[in-house]
Amino acid sequence: MTTRRSFLHQITGSVLALSVLPRMGWAEELSPDPKTPDGPVLRVAIMGLGSYGTRVAEAMRGCTRAKLVGVISGTPAKIRQWQTTYGIPEKNCYNYETYDAIKDNPDIDAVYVITPNALHHDAVLRVAKAGKHVICEKPMAVNARQGQSMVDACKAAGVRLLVGYRMHFEPHTLEVIRMRKEGAFGSIRFFQGLSGFIIGDPTQWRLNPQLSGGGAMMDIGIYSINGSRYMIGEEPVWVTAQETKTDPVKFKEGIDETIQFQLGFPGGAVASCLSTYNLNNLDRFFLDGEKGFAELFPATGYGPIQGRTNQGELQAPVVTHQTVQMDEMAQILLEGKQPVVPVDGQEAVRDLAIIDAIYHAARTGQKVRLGAPGQV
Amino acid sequence: MTTRRSFLHQITGSVLALSVLPRMGWAEELSPDPKTPDGPVLRVAIMGLGSYGTRVAEAMRGCTRAKLVGVISGTPAKIRQWQTTYGIPEKNCYNYETYDAIKDNPDIDAVYVITPNALHHDAVLRVAKAGKHVICEKPMAVNARQGQSMVDACKAAGVRLLVGYRMHFEPHTLEVIRMRKEGAFGSIRFFQGLSGFIIGDPTQWRLNPQLSGGGAMMDIGIYSINGSRYMIGEEPVWVTAQETKTDPVKFKEGIDETIQFQLGFPGGAVASCLSTYNLNNLDRFFLDGEKGFAELFPATGYGPIQGRTNQGELQAPVVTHQTVQMDEMAQILLEGKQPVVPVDGQEAVRDLAIIDAIYHAARTGQKVRLGAPGQV
Repeated sequence: MTTRRSFLHQITGSVLALSVLPRMGWAEELSPDPKTPDGPVLRVAIMGLGSYGTRVAEAMRGCTRAKLVGVISGTPAKIRQWQTTYGIPEKNCYNYETYDAIKDNPDIDAVYVITPNALHHDAVLRVAKAGKHVICEKPMAVNARQGQSMVDACKAAGVRLLVGYRMHFEPHTLEVIRMRKEGAFGSIRFFQGLSGFIIGDPTQWRLNPQLSGGGAMMDIGIYSINGSRYMIGEEPVWVTAQETKTDPVKFKEGIDETIQFQLGFPGGAVASCLSTYNLNNLDRFFLDGEKGFAELFPATGYGPIQGRTNQGELQAPVVTHQTVQMDEMAQILLEGKQPVVPVDGQEAVRDLAIIDAIYHAARTGQKVRLGAPGQV
Repeated sequence: MTTRRSFLHQITGSVLALSVLPRMGWAEELSPDPKTPDGPVLRVAIMGLGSYGTRVAEAMRGCTRAKLVGVISGTPAKIRQWQTTYGIPEKNCYNYETYDAIKDNPDIDAVYVITPNALHHDAVLRVAKAGKHVICEKPMAVNARQGQSMVDACKAAGVRLLVGYRMHFEPHTLEVIRMRKEGAFGSIRFFQGLSGFIIGDPTQWRLNPQLSGGGAMMDIGIYSINGSRYMIGEEPVWVTAQETKTDPVKFKEGIDETIQFQLGFPGGAVASCLSTYNLNNLDRFFLDGEKGFAELFPATGYGPIQGRTNQGELQAPVVTHQTVQMDEMAQILLEGKQPVVPVDGQEAVRDLAIIDAIYHAARTGQKVRLGAPGQV
């Protein structure tokens, strides 16, 4: 049995205590002491001080363009600990009752929402109302309708909404996308995404449908969904899905254990994917075209991504994903930089619409047609 | 564009002219000069002298327990050429009008049927009636009903019916099966089989539904079907499938181009497979369990199979598949040897029943339940 955090470590072969991450092994070279910024710095507050929030905070030590300056948490002890660890001033600390006041805090530019999935929607709306940019962890919401309302709310409030798609900044991933765009693989015909781990503690929020909005699909299957889109470079037009549940006690109603799903793309490519909470270290992408292929294994874990194509091993810098993500997001928010693959709310709504369709397909056994992007 | 033969070479990186196969490269060490037999020798006539028939004949030069002694062909010039190449006496040469007389030939023990798929059924029935053991190339027939009638006919005639499942004797494959049985991978949860190549000449029999009985599924998809069964070690209980056709001119009605299919197994494992005529060199198996994994790549091509497990690279002898197959089949037919994975007609009927179900599922969009083995 594995926690989600240890899984994402294990697939890199590096099981490191979080607190020492920036000082050991591969992480060391990737998270150097903060350098001199070469442009304006995004001042970020993190909402939700759990394990992933901690990972982001640690990674941000290596950022040159983004800085952790505030926290929002319901646990006073955690706030105090973070204040000490990251040097956060009292005036930038909020709890879930007080954080609307962040609108009067000129020292915070953006809030990174890292709460359980089902709480993202309300949090994003409140942050938007406070006039701050929002970065929201994925899945951005628990369905596309909710997601679209978040996009609309941010637009109405005049703030930007970005989503924690860290792989969109990962160098091996970007190299495959670059090669695909250059035609190195020819016409793309097939994508396979396998995403899974064996989830541990049955009492965690991820296994509570009220907080997670779903099971493995929401948590890890989304990597294969999103991956199919950025690897193939098209939007799927249909989906089919099959659900298998071997442990209905642990995976109660509303929590999917294993779902196979298939996607069809306008250019004739198809995708075969697996989302599961019952297999460890399952993290593989395979893209196949008329002329060549690319594979990433591990494809989306936190540690070094590895891969090869028909031309050989992929050579790309190994980075701490969240460091690069936050530096890039700072440039998107502060300078209007365009990422290679979008990381905005609309990108997330597309994934959510596919998740909605997968659940519907699995429930009904039907092939579900997907609307044009933007159409929910 | 690729012929089927060149595909199965390409995936090994060794594109060799067939005629020099036994004298070059990896084939050399695998097809030594015939050794002294250590038991009775199976005397085989090959029916159908096309490219695969030639491959089998060449591989049989390396056999110690099986010997090519006869031919059945509709082309006199081919018969003469084979007589010269393989030293086949006139009295062991037949055409499609005369071969029932093989029953009076005491120098032939078995006939290996290597004709187009749709012709297997009648040929097997005639060979059985002639009182000879039959080895039939796969797919054994074009549907399970036809296959079952072949099994019944051979039983009634008192002859054995074996099917050309060469992978059932391949050492890397057998090593994975051995490890799985020993529990090295724990409880099996997932199998992925990807089988495809880009088919060449549009006039070939494989693209004629009257001769092939189907498209990529009959030709190459069957490797993933059969592979899912021997890799997981269970019989599937349901199947779903999705067909995609990008070129309806080349792939006419009755010839499937690309089918994704999914299988469910009684122990909770699932399989996700791809059968396609529009991707080259696609030949990958991946087996994943609670404790470990195995991958074979290439998994079923003629050349050296390669693979690894969570314990490292698979170490197994590299063999010429058809040499080992024919030596093993001789022992099965002459000495009652039991293969690790069955290669009899009933084994083939199971694959055919799954193919029937896949076609039905693809056509209707329904999940199709599979009967118990033996139940068509």
